[in-house]
Amino acid sequence: MDTFSPLPSNPVLTLEPNQVMNQYLQVRQMSEQLCEPLELEDYMLQTSAEASPTKWHLAHVSWFFETFVLNEFKPNYRVFHPRYRYLFNSYYEQVSGGIYPRPQRGLLSRPTVAEVFRYRAWVDEHMQALFMQAPQENWNEIVRRVLIGLNHEQQHQELLLTDIKYNLGFNPLRPAYREQSPVNDESPGVPLQWIYFPGGVQDIGVAHSDNFAYDNESPRHSVFLQPFQLASRLVTNAEYLEFMQAGGYENSALWLADGWKIRGEQQWQAPLYWERQDDEWWVYSLNGFHRLNLREPVCHISYYEADAFASWAGQRLPTEAEWEIAAQAQPVLGHLRETGLLHPLPASAEPGLQQLFGDVWEWTQSAYQPYPGYQAASGALGEYNGKFMCNQQVLRGGSCVTPVDHLRVTYRNFFYPHERWQFKGIRLAQNGV
Amino acid sequence: MDTFSPLPSNPVLTLEPNQVMNQYLQVRQMSEQLCEPLELEDYMLQTSAEASPTKWHLAHVSWFFETFVLNEFKPNYRVFHPRYRYLFNSYYEQVSGGIYPRPQRGLLSRPTVAEVFRYRAWVDEHMQALFMQAPQENWNEIVRRVLIGLNHEQQHQELLLTDIKYNLGFNPLRPAYREQSPVNDESPGVPLQWIYFPGGVQDIGVAHSDNFAYDNESPRHSVFLQPFQLASRLVTNAEYLEFMQAGGYENSALWLADGWKIRGEQQWQAPLYWERQDDEWWVYSLNGFHRLNLREPVCHISYYEADAFASWAGQRLPTEAEWEIAAQAQPVLGHLRETGLLHPLPASAEPGLQQLFGDVWEWTQSAYQPYPGYQAASGALGEYNGKFMCNQQVLRGGSCVTPVDHLRVTYRNFFYPHERWQFKGIRLAQNGV
Amino acid sequence: MDTFSPLPSNPVLTLEPNQVMNQYLQVRQMSEQLCEPLELEDYMLQTSAEASPTKWHLAHVSWFFETFVLNEFKPNYRVFHPRYRYLFNSYYEQVSGGIYPRPQRGLLSRPTVAEVFRYRAWVDEHMQALFMQAPQENWNEIVRRVLIGLNHEQQHQELLLTDIKYNLGFNPLRPAYREQSPVNDESPGVPLQWIYFPGGVQDIGVAHSDNFAYDNESPRHSVFLQPFQLASRLVTNAEYLEFMQAGGYENSALWLADGWKIRGEQQWQAPLYWERQDDEWWVYSLNGFHRLNLREPVCHISYYEADAFASWAGQRLPTEAEWEIAAQAQPVLGHLRETGLLHPLPASAEPGLQQLFGDVWEWTQSAYQPYPGYQAASGALGEYNGKFMCNQQVLRGGSCVTPVDHLRVTYRNFFYPHERWQFKGIRLAQNGV
Amino acid sequence: MDTFSPLPSNPVLTLEPNQVMNQYLQVRQMSEQLCEPLELEDYMLQTSAEASPTKWHLAHVSWFFETFVLNEFKPNYRVFHPRYRYLFNSYYEQVSGGIYPRPQRGLLSRPTVAEVFRYRAWVDEHMQALFMQAPQENWNEIVRRVLIGLNHEQQHQELLLTDIKYNLGFNPLRPAYREQSPVNDESPGVPLQWIYFPGGVQDIGVAHSDNFAYDNESPRHSVFLQPFQLASRLVTNAEYLEFMQAGGYENSALWLADGWKIRGEQQWQAPLYWERQDDEWWVYSLNGFHRLNLREPVCHISYYEADAFASWAGQRLPTEAEWEIAAQAQPVLGHLRETGLLHPLPASAEPGLQQLFGDVWEWTQSAYQPYPGYQAASGALGEYNGKFMCNQQVLRGGSCVTPVDHLRVTYRNFFYPHERWQFKGIRLAQNGV
Repeated sequence: MDTFSPLPSNPVLTLEPNQVMNQYLQVRQMSEQLCEPLELEDYMLQTSAEASPTKWHLAHVSWFFETFVLNEFKPNYRVFHPRYRYLFNSYYEQVSGGIYPRPQRGLLSRPTVAEVFRYRAWVDEHMQALFMQAPQENWNEIVRRVLIGLNHEQQHQELLLTDIKYNLGFNPLRPAYREQSPVNDESPGVPLQWIYFPGGVQDIGVAHSDNFAYDNESPRHSVFLQPFQLASRLVTNAEYLEFMQAGGYENSALWLADGWKIRGEQQWQAPLYWERQDDEWWVYSLNGFHRLNLREPVCHISYYEADAFASWAGQRLPTEAEWEIAAQAQPVLGHLRETGLLHPLPASAEPGLQQLFGDVWEWTQSAYQPYPGYQAASGALGEYNGKFMCNQQVLRGGSCVTPVDHLRVTYRNFFYPHERWQFKGIRLAQNGV
Repeated sequence: MDTFSPLPSNPVLTLEPNQVMNQYLQVRQMSEQLCEPLELEDYMLQTSAEASPTKWHLAHVSWFFETFVLNEFKPNYRVFHPRYRYLFNSYYEQVSGGIYPRPQRGLLSRPTVAEVFRYRAWVDEHMQALFMQAPQENWNEIVRRVLIGLNHEQQHQELLLTDIKYNLGFNPLRPAYREQSPVNDESPGVPLQWIYFPGGVQDIGVAHSDNFAYDNESPRHSVFLQPFQLASRLVTNAEYLEFMQAGGYENSALWLADGWKIRGEQQWQAPLYWERQDDEWWVYSLNGFHRLNLREPVCHISYYEADAFASWAGQRLPTEAEWEIAAQAQPVLGHLRETGLLHPLPASAEPGLQQLFGDVWEWTQSAYQPYPGYQAASGALGEYNGKFMCNQQVLRGGSCVTPVDHLRVTYRNFFYPHERWQFKGIRLAQNGV
Repeated sequence: MDTFSPLPSNPVLTLEPNQVMNQYLQVRQMSEQLCEPLELEDYMLQTSAEASPTKWHLAHVSWFFETFVLNEFKPNYRVFHPRYRYLFNSYYEQVSGGIYPRPQRGLLSRPTVAEVFRYRAWVDEHMQALFMQAPQENWNEIVRRVLIGLNHEQQHQELLLTDIKYNLGFNPLRPAYREQSPVNDESPGVPLQWIYFPGGVQDIGVAHSDNFAYDNESPRHSVFLQPFQLASRLVTNAEYLEFMQAGGYENSALWLADGWKIRGEQQWQAPLYWERQDDEWWVYSLNGFHRLNLREPVCHISYYEADAFASWAGQRLPTEAEWEIAAQAQPVLGHLRETGLLHPLPASAEPGLQQLFGDVWEWTQSAYQPYPGYQAASGALGEYNGKFMCNQQVLRGGSCVTPVDHLRVTYRNFFYPHERWQFKGIRLAQNGV
Repeated sequence: MDTFSPLPSNPVLTLEPNQVMNQYLQVRQMSEQLCEPLELEDYMLQTSAEASPTKWHLAHVSWFFETFVLNEFKPNYRVFHPRYRYLFNSYYEQVSGGIYPRPQRGLLSRPTVAEVFRYRAWVDEHMQALFMQAPQENWNEIVRRVLIGLNHEQQHQELLLTDIKYNLGFNPLRPAYREQSPVNDESPGVPLQWIYFPGGVQDIGVAHSDNFAYDNESPRHSVFLQPFQLASRLVTNAEYLEFMQAGGYENSALWLADGWKIRGEQQWQAPLYWERQDDEWWVYSLNGFHRLNLREPVCHISYYEADAFASWAGQRLPTEAEWEIAAQAQPVLGHLRETGLLHPLPASAEPGLQQLFGDVWEWTQSAYQPYPGYQAASGALGEYNGKFMCNQQVLRGGSCVTPVDHLRVTYRNFFYPHERWQFKGIRLAQNGV
């Protein structure tokens, strides 16, 4: 994956060929299933350097298996097309042959969509043949790489949805990914509550285990935390609108310096996808163009906006350690991709921490940096996570387009503070007493 | 058309509805016929601000008829889609509703290609209905506008081919518009001869006549010319290669100041579409990727390169008046689009001026400026030609992608001096003795 | 000079050493005299790539004599400083050693101003020694080059004033070059009259003669002109204000396409140096910041604004041939630099053509192109004029900062159509009847 | 100061008027003393947006006292010039009247240098009068602000030297700030040793105390550290050269992704100020242009280069907490500005941690973020530090241009990871065993 993370630092798990093949086929089929609502023209769209074409995602994740598995471990493997090594390399400098420029991914009509699907079929066929052979001596390494490749493809499934939203939303005709009525929600808003945590020396991160995790989640290590409190739910559109109406976007005192600058340059006045029509706010989503639901969590905001909102509210954002300590006891359940909503939902009236997983990724105050003792793997796969540990902020908790079996409580997502096109929102924190 | 010209200043010709309808259908069908070799994905490509997507061309020329004919003269006409007025306006500031940004034409997957063809069918159906009615009182104005619209569409047919060449050629896979072997040409090169013209007071431009011409070709007027000589044929690839081998791209003394600057910025070292492979030059064309034919005219060069070449050769480029005086006696024949070559051909061994029409547009030394007494029409259609009379150079003679019934000896094409993506080449001139 | 012109194509005039030395000293002293009102800090200012620092002008014109005269003709001449060859080369690609980047001329504190004056004294001393020796065999070539160098320095005197106006005017404190009350002008405006010229075959340009002229003014040659009329005086601020109040800056129908684009990008709403304060227009000049005088000629406008104004007035700009034919019979008199006004003056009530020379340069409709038969000199001095013959427009008539003995009726000044920092205005023309 | 930090969170110290006045005069005089080697022209230089003119520094630090002290607490105070509020505001959005654009600070010749010194004298005079009056009721707040202002001015003294180095070094003539022979150093290099620290729960930061500290250094708080080791000395030029010779600048595997990108764009191949002449490396410093001393600490590198070097060496950079814990027991002694060296010195052969203070700022792995419980002050002075807590990295230890009485072990300096113009170098760390 390209803007996210991985590489498991954990010892390789012993999986049977059959199990691996099943997982493989499931994930691969899901990528294609997500494309079903699209017109053929939609596959080519790239309306910003960040938002890659659907066609490119489909090819790149196949390139990943071809480059890191088939080329290395399948005897006599012949690549589908010699130039794909170049065309579909995302950012792996150590893979020879160069990297096709990211901002130009939408400028290629060939290979056609049909050809890309043939490429996928070719790779799948050879991967299955490889699983059948299951060569004894490299099997562990093959499994390790396949698991990375599948998690990689799941990250791209999330990106595929995020990017298609951005790319279709760019069109003045505002076409929907799929037409669907918004959830009919008549419930009143849920009051925010503060949940207290005592802090002290605590452990976070992933220890060596039998389950897959990315390398950036380890080593498990101790941190010292002051007492803190976490908001029971996400910040809502209603609350964010209050911030806007109080002049939040015009009050420099609330903003980080870099945020104030980009706000001016890009003329931010509301979250991405909000549009004022007559006297009402509307919002564009994968389900179409609808009136803003005030009880839904605010979404598609930058770190700068999240931080400014927190300042205005007299609170702050949590650190990633605080978030993880608070979430450790919770099951990974929520409005994730499998719900099929593809849009965050209002909080329910239940007590305790809500909306921790799914709905929106939660910006944390923590810069994305290596955990103490972190060591990136060697070789091109080592580029997966480690080289991005500068200038980005950690986000936690997954969103409505994250696959449920992809997420963990230790999962560290990361983006640049100015980026808004992912499903990102706000959970407030404050110092404990 | 958007970077070219029009508006007839000549009195309206009396054409029968049947004649108009026949011309209309012929031109409209040709636009679609030119798309037949394309994959659906190719229709969306825009790899530079100048090179518009095929899909956009197909829609914009229909918009032209809808906006300037149907909306004005068809009673109760209902537009196909209300937002197309905005999406497919190229540069007509006086058409209300705004202009969708040119560099972003390739960022729209909707309307789909199929939808654009439906748009064309809708416009054609209503145009035919209008021709049937042939309302007496507006008939002359309708014919005037339809003729502009058809010439406009022919210009876009040329652009469609030029742009698809650029957009496909951008792809590292170098896909051809259609695969076709290069003309097998074993003939030796033809020696260049100088044809003498005495000059004096001469008339150029279009007088009021029964045939269509753009407004920028009139009024017909006198100019005073010194004696001059014109090269009998175009400059060949062989000759241009000599210039390159003599260090032409590194010798500032040969270049205009603005040309020297852009040469450095863009790192020009050869014409567009030339590629060095091992020790040979190859060239990309609509027919595929082939070895450079040295006897063909050099093509896809900027005005700066044409001027530097002429300086190196100790000659100069002709003025547009010289070109027109020399060409006046010649029939409009040559390797134009109807030959189906879509690539310039070597000169033949016949005596006299050759390759005047077709093959490549010929850069002239003349800045694109109004003829004395020129008056742009009022209203949005007046924007067609007049507002571009600054910073551009005139080209003459048509190219291998220009429709034959679109060209005239008085035809003035114009482009910015740095532009290379059109089929442009060099005819030398020198002062007479 | 760098953005202007020269090189005499005329045979060398026989001047005595004494005459040359006198001219030389006069021109050189004038450059330094123009700097007297400046603070030392002002010499370093460069607030745009075009507006060079005073210090740089003073050094560059000395570099010109050092490079093209002393280095070539003074035996055993030792340059003042070896790096100045690089630092003070403006645009002569053929002078070896490279060209220091133009936009960074203001980023050098060394050499100091005092050092630059020492450099001037060094060059002057050696030039005088050279004149004393007056070597027989090269004398004609030396004189030819000295005359170019002196005309070159005069062009830089004009630029020095234009640039210091721009550079000081950039400062929010609006410091004056010198404080001076505006001319107290109570006279009513003068009505515009149209002067008729019959056209026909006419001669323009410079023939070989005994007087200095730049190469771009020759050869003298015939042109054919339609009958035309020229406005008796320049367009005034009052008239330009009418254009503004009629929405001239918001009406795309009046503008050239390139002009409309830059108008939007740069947010032009008035000429350069105009400022709205409360309900009045003020204007910054070399004499300070004063209320706009409505009877003065409008000044500091681009070609695009001049052309849009003419369209709005239902007229057009003259061609350079029309201007020269009309001016041929007139003496070169007017508000030039020697009047000490340094600002254009209102027209007087005399009959006939007024304000032809001085006040403001007059934009013509003519692109700057070579006259038929023009040949640039060989070598670096050949770069003076010829390489700029693309993308620029000709201006005629001199301005209030042009030295009187520098100007001629055949003089061709040229600038890019978007440039506004020179003293440029409008004289209208129309077709004769 | 503008790119650094402040605001004391500590209770105000009771200082006598005399003491304050003495400190005030000392700091203020030092600023002027640092300018003595400059030519008047040097005061105006700004060769990048970051490197402000000396003249601007001198005025801005006076503006600080005028704006935050005199305007607030001096009865009937009249500002020196009403437009200075705008011209010399660096980044305080909450000070009304706007902020003059930072990249254009070098484009103002007025006020002149002499005028800026008069401005300083005016402010000093009124500050002294204020100290004399020593108004009882606001005295504590005045002292608090004066101390910030003095520390602010000291930060600008460091910037003044850093910026003048950058601005003079830009000049191809490579003028020295002052000519001085490099220290004659014949000692052999000192071997690097690893100093072990056990980690555990430790306290860092500033508690409320009687000494001045910036707000970003507090609150004092606990952190949990793994055992770690710190290099006994800084990385030397010799070691850095090894990295270069081993292809460090061409090996993407060593670099952070953002670093690799900027390295390519800016074509980094060595630290800033290094120049290859014939076969030797030279280096530009405030003392002139000299041969590179291999035993000196490497200096003027970005965070990306520091991190890539550490990767190549198989080590890492320290966190700021590790650095502070290691330095806590050490006196603040070293090659700071008072030594007059203005250039880092080789390590000596003494045992233990060396070069902790002075020589070069040491990049840490820690992003610049708020300490737990940090609270920025309200009002414009609250903008001093807090709003920069994103996208920057912490540096520790001061440099050869840092005033000794300005530094503390808890001092947090911060810069963007790509910035190289400050005196920044590398101390390695590794995990303890």
